[in-house]
Amino acid sequence: MNDLSQLVARIVPVDARVAADTQRLLDLKTKPRRSLGRLEDLACQIASIRGAVPAAPLEKAIVVMGADHGVAEDGVSAYPQEVTGQMLLNFASGGAAINVLAREAGARVVVVDMGVKHPPPPTPAIRLHALGPGTANLARGPAMTRATAEAALGIGAGIAAELAASGVGLIGIGDMGIGNTTPSAALAALFCGAPPEEVCGRGTGIDDAGLRRKIAAVRQGLEVNRPDPRDGVDALAKVGGFEIAGLAGVVLGAAAARVPVVMDGFIASAAALAAVRIAPAAVGYLVASHRSVEAGHRLVLQAIGAKPLLDLDLRLGEGTGAALAMTLVDASLRILMEMATFADAGVSDSGA
Amino acid sequence: MNDLSQLVARIVPVDARVAADTQRLLDLKTKPRRSLGRLEDLACQIASIRGAVPAAPLEKAIVVMGADHGVAEDGVSAYPQEVTGQMLLNFASGGAAINVLAREAGARVVVVDMGVKHPPPPTPAIRLHALGPGTANLARGPAMTRATAEAALGIGAGIAAELAASGVGLIGIGDMGIGNTTPSAALAALFCGAPPEEVCGRGTGIDDAGLRRKIAAVRQGLEVNRPDPRDGVDALAKVGGFEIAGLAGVVLGAAAARVPVVMDGFIASAAALAAVRIAPAAVGYLVASHRSVEAGHRLVLQAIGAKPLLDLDLRLGEGTGAALAMTLVDASLRILMEMATFADAGVSDSGA
Repeated sequence: MNDLSQLVARIVPVDARVAADTQRLLDLKTKPRRSLGRLEDLACQIASIRGAVPAAPLEKAIVVMGADHGVAEDGVSAYPQEVTGQMLLNFASGGAAINVLAREAGARVVVVDMGVKHPPPPTPAIRLHALGPGTANLARGPAMTRATAEAALGIGAGIAAELAASGVGLIGIGDMGIGNTTPSAALAALFCGAPPEEVCGRGTGIDDAGLRRKIAAVRQGLEVNRPDPRDGVDALAKVGGFEIAGLAGVVLGAAAARVPVVMDGFIASAAALAAVRIAPAAVGYLVASHRSVEAGHRLVLQAIGAKPLLDLDLRLGEGTGAALAMTLVDASLRILMEMATFADAGVSDSGA
Repeated sequence: MNDLSQLVARIVPVDARVAADTQRLLDLKTKPRRSLGRLEDLACQIASIRGAVPAAPLEKAIVVMGADHGVAEDGVSAYPQEVTGQMLLNFASGGAAINVLAREAGARVVVVDMGVKHPPPPTPAIRLHALGPGTANLARGPAMTRATAEAALGIGAGIAAELAASGVGLIGIGDMGIGNTTPSAALAALFCGAPPEEVCGRGTGIDDAGLRRKIAAVRQGLEVNRPDPRDGVDALAKVGGFEIAGLAGVVLGAAAARVPVVMDGFIASAAALAAVRIAPAAVGYLVASHRSVEAGHRLVLQAIGAKPLLDLDLRLGEGTGAALAMTLVDASLRILMEMATFADAGVSDSGA
């Protein structure tokens, strides 16, 4: 049994009995039953993941992984590849959207270089796990070898395990990588059985010609590589990306440690769906933060069976949607921990 | 010119030029243009209300007004009227959902007794502005006199002015009142020209027979009282409630002080729509926090022209949705205040 099989074997389904017990606790609180709607579902899910109602607010971290993509040479993005490394440095300096929104959420940001083409100068604020100067062009052949995909999964799982061991109880996942909606679209098309046109959007803002090139790249990638939709590792290797495989690893590592994972948008959700293909029990650990404007995101969330908490027309990535949704997780747990019961407060209960 | 006319005269339309200037500032930040979607709209709206980009996070308060309703005698609620006063006491003790979510949002809660049937023991944590032991039954005649409605508007406006003067820059509005989805439905039917069946929901959880009684009460109330849909004060007096008129007053007072107002669910939004009928320029000051499961809420928000930020199946009231949405307002302003520009961060800009 290799490392990945051992990791997968440690992921147990979430505890539905704890979810039901938690709902009973919520029903004692001074409010009509179920009147906090999806906030109550969220509290029950978090408790079911941890096996008990948390006694204190969860410590939070957002893992943002960056990498480059060979398919960028096909003109699938509005931005040059230099931007991936430049943005990692921006994350390290604290000036990007994810830094701002993570501060608002009280989450720390863990920046990981999974393999960029123009790396930023070394800084302790960026963890260096580069698997190469970006992937190969998935439209011509496999993006990476199976061994490299397994290495990326191992890196992500290791980071999640380390965060969990240091007391982090809620992990967000975000991405940075010029061109990375293209591998995400390829994974979405593969896992959801959808035609490339249905899963390709405008990413950071490509024009009509760029969108046509992107759809062509996804189609070619699936034809040339013939990835196996039932084999998440094969899919990640052939049409994924270093950061996408790394984030799938974070999901597996978090689930093995019984830590909930808040997915960001299209790319992070595609990574999470790959993780679920590798370890189906991981599905219960996933929280969908928002519905991106990217066309394929809705299909990916449907395949995961997760309903997004926010619908704010975001399309930035970096974990920004995950950061915003973390506050809702906090709020749902505070309700459990701090609200008075009908008995405590002397309020008449209708039972409704 | 009476007090109300003077108040209305002080409400100026929000400044569209400031909104456009703010969007230009956002377009310099290290992200694809408009990629933070509705968070960017929110930042622009807040700046347009204040006349400038805020230099610091906004101090926040949530005004929760409670009152009773004569129409409760028609069996339109699942809860007894004692609960209104009991819940005000629960708010005062800090154990209700709104207290918990306001703490999460960093907002103070201002609890106001606008007239409950079974008042809680006096406490400094509840402001006493009771206009009587609840309204008269709107299904039989006017809920209150026009003078009383004007008094309620004045109380709300005064509280908003006081909060603004003390440095509060963002006000949420929430309600508590057994039976108060019935007057809200009557206002929604009146202002939106909708039949009573379309605007009546199950409130805190009434059964089918209760829902039929509620629809009948709304129909009778509109037939007996013939409120003028173009006259917000007349509507509030005939088919409103003390807390609903009070919250409409908070909207007017906040708008006069150029302070944005985050509406909670159906009741608070019906109050805000009444305020807009009284002072059309107030519309630009309103932020819709969430879409309630109450049937009439969608119509009321459409009439206001506000799109809710959250859709979490909430139906509690108290300002709970407003508290959750305040964090998104904070996040949107932090983006403006803290994010690096392309120039600052040395990131290549595609112009996309």
